Amino acid sequence: MQPWDFMLIGDLDVRNQVKELCEREQQAAACYYDEPRRSHYLSLNLEGIVESSVNLCITCDPTRAEEVLGRNSIRETDVYSTCRAVQNMWLASRAEGIGVGWVSVLKMSQLRKILGIPHHVIPVAYLCIGYPVEYLGEPLLQTAGWRDHLPLSELLHYDGWESTGALPDWSDFQRAIEAD
Amino acid sequence: MQPWDFMLIGDLDVRNQVKELCEREQQAAACYYDEPRRSHYLSLNLEGIVESSVNLCITCDPTRAEEVLGRNSIRETDVYSTCRAVQNMWLASRAEGIGVGWVSVLKMSQLRKILGIPHHVIPVAYLCIGYPVEYLGEPLLQTAGWRDHLPLSELLHYDGWESTGALPDWSDFQRAIEAD
Repeated sequence: MQPWDFMLIGDLDVRNQVKELCEREQQAAACYYDEPRRSHYLSLNLEGIVESSVNLCITCDPTRAEEVLGRNSIRETDVYSTCRAVQNMWLASRAEGIGVGWVSVLKMSQLRKILGIPHHVIPVAYLCIGYPVEYLGEPLLQTAGWRDHLPLSELLHYDGWESTGALPDWSDFQRAIEAD
Repeated sequence: MQPWDFMLIGDLDVRNQVKELCEREQQAAACYYDEPRRSHYLSLNLEGIVESSVNLCITCDPTRAEEVLGRNSIRETDVYSTCRAVQNMWLASRAEGIGVGWVSVLKMSQLRKILGIPHHVIPVAYLCIGYPVEYLGEPLLQTAGWRDHLPLSELLHYDGWESTGALPDWSDFQRAIEAD
């Protein structure tokens, strides 16, 4: 489908505009948190927007893939494809020792204005890319107590939502297929 | 954020219900195509739903991550994360020689009924997983003339939507950063 465009942003003036947008958004979003989360939230660093080697905005053009299969039933497949392109790029970067950070503290409509993105195009991801000072052993937000890791076993279901628990005997699937 | 659940579907009765749903949807979607695309579209094989080793439905629960960072400004980050989990699993499967096919010819509201998925949970992906007979050298839909591959150079922009073309001298970015 290739609904994506990739916009590389090196210009520091543009990046400072984006950073200002995020700082304002961070102030607004902090209003929804109580202490001590509020202070922690406000301390989160947005400097990566200007300090990273380059910023990358990945967009989705829903009009490009109008004729492509699979969009009659699920309109969002174009955005889903774009997210998967983001992840491919992310993993390829990581394999090269390059770090990626997703900036989600911004309003996409305002980002659209700064970058001159047409109204029909959806800015999906705004990423900071560069060689990181360090890789953490576990997600920062987990260390900071925002959320514990959920074990996979709690997120598995079998043949329907209600059936959960440990992985069934895999040969059951094989027998079912052979019996068909 | 981990907004996802993974539902493994081995049961052939359930899979046949899903296949029937897709066949009906395929008939409906075919109405939007002219010949010869219509015939080609109708010939596309849905047997993988029952013939593959297992089906996998990956869902997104928007309520699980309400308190998690980054959702004040962009509500869709939970679905984006789920798509990226799909892609991680897809690439890991491919590395093991396991093929994955995304079934997008179905209405998610009807799939929700078959699988008993709660109303607030979004079924994002319905996948067929198994050892494929062959890997094609290029996407089937490209070979079949649905769409040509777009070269990356046509999808690149620099510092703003209007600036397109060849990759600029990377050292420009470096100089800009050093001058800061």
